[in-house]
Amino acid sequence: MTQMEAAKAGRITSEMKTVASYESVGAEWLCNQVAKGEIALVKNENHQGVAPLGVGGGLRTKVNANIGTSTDASDLEQEIEKARVALEAKTDALMDLSTAGDLGLIRRRILREIPLILGTVPIYEAAVRTVQDGGGIIHMKPETLFDVLIQQAEEGVDFFTVHCGLTLQSLERLKKQGRLTNVVSRGGSFLMTWMIANEKENPLYSEFDHVLEIAKKYDVTLSLGDGLRPGSIADATDRAQIQELLILGELTQRAREANVQVMIEGPGHVPLDQIRTNMQIQKKLCQNAPFYVLGPLVTDIAPGYDHITSAIGGALAASEGADFLCYVTPCEHLKLPNADEVREGVMAARIAAHAADLVKGVPGAVEWDYAMSSARRNLDWNKQIELSIDPVRAAALRKSAAPKEEDVCTMCGDFCAIKLVNQTLLGSENE
Amino acid sequence: MTQMEAAKAGRITSEMKTVASYESVGAEWLCNQVAKGEIALVKNENHQGVAPLGVGGGLRTKVNANIGTSTDASDLEQEIEKARVALEAKTDALMDLSTAGDLGLIRRRILREIPLILGTVPIYEAAVRTVQDGGGIIHMKPETLFDVLIQQAEEGVDFFTVHCGLTLQSLERLKKQGRLTNVVSRGGSFLMTWMIANEKENPLYSEFDHVLEIAKKYDVTLSLGDGLRPGSIADATDRAQIQELLILGELTQRAREANVQVMIEGPGHVPLDQIRTNMQIQKKLCQNAPFYVLGPLVTDIAPGYDHITSAIGGALAASEGADFLCYVTPCEHLKLPNADEVREGVMAARIAAHAADLVKGVPGAVEWDYAMSSARRNLDWNKQIELSIDPVRAAALRKSAAPKEEDVCTMCGDFCAIKLVNQTLLGSENE
Repeated sequence: MTQMEAAKAGRITSEMKTVASYESVGAEWLCNQVAKGEIALVKNENHQGVAPLGVGGGLRTKVNANIGTSTDASDLEQEIEKARVALEAKTDALMDLSTAGDLGLIRRRILREIPLILGTVPIYEAAVRTVQDGGGIIHMKPETLFDVLIQQAEEGVDFFTVHCGLTLQSLERLKKQGRLTNVVSRGGSFLMTWMIANEKENPLYSEFDHVLEIAKKYDVTLSLGDGLRPGSIADATDRAQIQELLILGELTQRAREANVQVMIEGPGHVPLDQIRTNMQIQKKLCQNAPFYVLGPLVTDIAPGYDHITSAIGGALAASEGADFLCYVTPCEHLKLPNADEVREGVMAARIAAHAADLVKGVPGAVEWDYAMSSARRNLDWNKQIELSIDPVRAAALRKSAAPKEEDVCTMCGDFCAIKLVNQTLLGSENE
Repeated sequence: MTQMEAAKAGRITSEMKTVASYESVGAEWLCNQVAKGEIALVKNENHQGVAPLGVGGGLRTKVNANIGTSTDASDLEQEIEKARVALEAKTDALMDLSTAGDLGLIRRRILREIPLILGTVPIYEAAVRTVQDGGGIIHMKPETLFDVLIQQAEEGVDFFTVHCGLTLQSLERLKKQGRLTNVVSRGGSFLMTWMIANEKENPLYSEFDHVLEIAKKYDVTLSLGDGLRPGSIADATDRAQIQELLILGELTQRAREANVQVMIEGPGHVPLDQIRTNMQIQKKLCQNAPFYVLGPLVTDIAPGYDHITSAIGGALAASEGADFLCYVTPCEHLKLPNADEVREGVMAARIAAHAADLVKGVPGAVEWDYAMSSARRNLDWNKQIELSIDPVRAAALRKSAAPKEEDVCTMCGDFCAIKLVNQTLLGSENE
């Protein structure tokens, strides 16, 4: 029985209790939201040693970190190390996007060693297997793709990115649109190439019932991917993107009927004034399904700083309804991240998520800021560091520049406004 | 004759021509905006070797970097170095916030050596002189403050932060409000302490005509400071903040009548859902005066990353009407920044400003992103690096991880979506 099936029957599962307690929300309310499909409880029944992750409206905004090899950087130990760093930096989930080396080995080690909800993009492995068998991506057999889905589901992968909305119709819209950057999704580019070469419909769409069946067996959450997400500011919110979203909305309905949980993936590169619209139209077209966004990046011109461009977009997106932020590292558009860059990416995404949680009314969010600012007012430096989103960095920065008087910092030194005002107000209150 | 005086007489000055050409706007339109006080042309007549800086609606969003000594870190050469780094990182303006060492020497060297518009907070020097003369800040003589204003204006300082709205009435509101973090503005804390101890009105308010007279002589722009800006999320948009803003609105009107240019300084720490309101109320209460914001920081809990918390707030603020962003460095709330941190702060603020310019319709903004994404689509790496907001960092990151095939990057290696799609679409077009 999937979580959604149980929820529809009004049965509060232990997973619901765990998430409700962790999120400080009522278990009955949560059960009701899971039944409607507005919250996903992401966890594969076969994934041991990991707590289910609640994603959706009314819960804390979650953060995902991508790791994984590429044909240019294929070191298993490095990827495990990145996964550990992401865990320490308090990501809520991981995606393994490996496309080189022994994909099964990498994935199984992560599933075993890293206690985090894990997502994959199964078409990567299908493409890699096809290439390893000596064919180009156009020679991929749909059976290979479904074999991969079945194997990964059995192994315990918690959520799958499946680009089911990249249909022949969507491609037609894309061609008529005339885009600056056509398709920047890797999975989307594989599918598109295959579809054009074979003149066939996307098997993830034409055989969606098969996808549902596999997902249902282990309660894998489907993260319906946006193969046509805009890869540039110029392409944001265009007809190709919205066509794909329309189809994802229909598939969401079918998945709910089959008691399979779904999330919807979203853009991408989006200018500031289109973010609200993007959040609203996704929530409407997909009946309030959880929204998982990559960025959005609010400008194209800042490679080296795309953790910042995406923190800007992610904070705004989450405050307008996005539920799950995929991190972007400083080296997006330039190279595969190293462990330090993974850490930086997680922190930037967590900041964006928390800034949104402050205005979403998420339990505990406002209280955290209040506690920090109380410590600041009281010049309690130990408490400030303890309450920092990254205590390690805050402590290191403070240590690197010790003030003469311990109660201030070197920014203002003797002329610390807070210290002066505390003295002034205390004096004035004692009058 | 000040720029505003000339503008009111319909005279298009050489400064207006310079700014109009630089901003790709019409000189007549600009002249009209300067006459109304909706754009400030910031430049002291005595400041040689520097172009005037246009700040206000319809122009590119500008960025300011703060440098300056504190009693804990008082090395003149280091501050000059930071000013140079900020210039190289393409800040639009500098503020010298020095409070230790030979303040006059530091300021004059910056004015002479760094070709950037320079602002100061004159009460800092007045406070330092008072302390050097053996008194506490409560012993500051108003004459000392006005002497400083006169001297700095003569030397060529382009804009003054003057906390003229921190009046006895504002302090009354502050007391009745009951804040978490009372006053976090350094200048504000000096004035408040002085006012409470001496039971006197703020001389920058009671003698505002004198302030105007000094500013007018050299066309110094007054940046009306927000001594009561919120220093925590909990204190945002409270009665104390808005009381001060009301007074700044009245003073804006008086300054315009006296042909003195003003900008208004704004918060501070502001949650995401109050930023639009803050921008709108400032523009209304101060009759569309240029708005110069510090941050705003959208959460209190991220010391070590406040360049990011403020880039989030700054981008949203600028897209909603802020005209000038004061940078915040990664070590805000922890220590005085070093040169690297200054650079990081400028870049984060420039990203926020540009993300806003994309949606403000600023000439050239959309074109920059389009050119970058064209280069990306064409896998033209030299062009991508050249067009990056920080070509040095982009080049270094790319160089640190060379791919086997030069046309891709190590993120996706052989499985580069753009490369595959270019091939697929080319193939499909050739069919």
